[in-house]
Amino acid sequence: MRSTQRNTSREVPNSVLGRALTVLTAFELGDDELSLAELVRRTGVAKATVHRLVTELAEWRVVERTPGGGVRLGIRLFELGQLVPRQLGLREAAAPFLADLFEATHETVHLATPDGTEVVYVQKLEGRAGPRVPSRVGGRMPMHCTGVGKAMLAFAPPELVDEVLRAGLTRRAPRTIIAPGLLSAELERIHERGVAYEREESGIGVTCVAAPVLDADSRAVAALSITGWVNRFDPERLAPAVRTAALGLSRRLRHL
Amino acid sequence: MRSTQRNTSREVPNSVLGRALTVLTAFELGDDELSLAELVRRTGVAKATVHRLVTELAEWRVVERTPGGGVRLGIRLFELGQLVPRQLGLREAAAPFLADLFEATHETVHLATPDGTEVVYVQKLEGRAGPRVPSRVGGRMPMHCTGVGKAMLAFAPPELVDEVLRAGLTRRAPRTIIAPGLLSAELERIHERGVAYEREESGIGVTCVAAPVLDADSRAVAALSITGWVNRFDPERLAPAVRTAALGLSRRLRHL
Repeated sequence: MRSTQRNTSREVPNSVLGRALTVLTAFELGDDELSLAELVRRTGVAKATVHRLVTELAEWRVVERTPGGGVRLGIRLFELGQLVPRQLGLREAAAPFLADLFEATHETVHLATPDGTEVVYVQKLEGRAGPRVPSRVGGRMPMHCTGVGKAMLAFAPPELVDEVLRAGLTRRAPRTIIAPGLLSAELERIHERGVAYEREESGIGVTCVAAPVLDADSRAVAALSITGWVNRFDPERLAPAVRTAALGLSRRLRHL
Repeated sequence: MRSTQRNTSREVPNSVLGRALTVLTAFELGDDELSLAELVRRTGVAKATVHRLVTELAEWRVVERTPGGGVRLGIRLFELGQLVPRQLGLREAAAPFLADLFEATHETVHLATPDGTEVVYVQKLEGRAGPRVPSRVGGRMPMHCTGVGKAMLAFAPPELVDEVLRAGLTRRAPRTIIAPGLLSAELERIHERGVAYEREESGIGVTCVAAPVLDADSRAVAALSITGWVNRFDPERLAPAVRTAALGLSRRLRHL
């Protein structure tokens, strides 16, 4: 996951802005705060430069200095991120549909949007009884091993499917589909039915049913899913609910 | 609101990073995309510079170029913002408490954190039957006219109360408390009871009950609230539920 989050393999950028972005993207999930020394180590940017960039970013409250001299990402960055239109419009339009699905099932409900060969989760309502899946709002997963990803891929331009296959079907769990031919057949079935099932393909014991949210050209712009324990959750029984919510959201987005 | 979002009153920053942040913070709620010309107009930064900054920000996917030549905030910014620890830890710890409150009441539930003299909403579960309040995740409101803000202010250092009074008690609705003496008396009552009521102080027809989330020193680090229509929602009846959830979340955060 590190490689998709950071440009560790690249050189330190020459530009000031590139260096600042290198510093900001050095933070990872679980990093409450980083010391200047750790930022220097992770970024390869000179200490004096890191210090100067952090001071300026802190003036804008994009980062915050901690009492112990550390650095953390600042609330201003959260606010800016919330304005990103690709997630904002989708999340707002989807809110009542997600609430209804949650109300009707009490299982974990996800809303995701495609980004390259991955999905980015835009909303998650967590059921109390279901498995604690590691997805989180703003987090990523590969398309080929998730219900939302397969649902979107089945309604994507063929070039994207090629790109996913070229990127390689990494195994995430014992049942991840890693054979290109099997994935293609699976995507055809999903296209016919309008729903995607995922059975322990991203994690053991976890199953889900997902449906694509389509634009006027029948291309997927998002997907909804319901996730539960494989031994006490029947995804086929919940397929009509997920499909209905996804069709409703598709219609709503086309009329905004 | 514009003044808290942008540094319109300041000069164009001299530094490259300052100019880049000026461009990024030129985007406001509802701006799906902005043209380069509009970015130049809003920021006062020279067109060639805006063009160069946008090109580099787009390489990092912090912004995206649209087919029509416009610029929009990019999904990478959303992802980065989701890593901000002040909202992430709080939101994750609060999720089950918010879900329970929503389940029990079906009214709109908010989670907010203090930032200066304002509150920043970190989560919102929207009831279908209640008023459509203009709050949104990542949005701000002044402390003195909101339930969550008053709940946090009643458990804040006295210097913060002074700062709020100095900033001025702006009227947001006919019933906003704008007299410093009345606000002080209200904060004392809230401190005694452990819950804050807001009755049409931020919007007509809307009422809410809020409770502070406290750290080990009894200082507010967040607040929870339930919001409904003033004529069909009894905030006093829901006070025990909100207070219970806030106490539970306070305990949870102290043991993380």
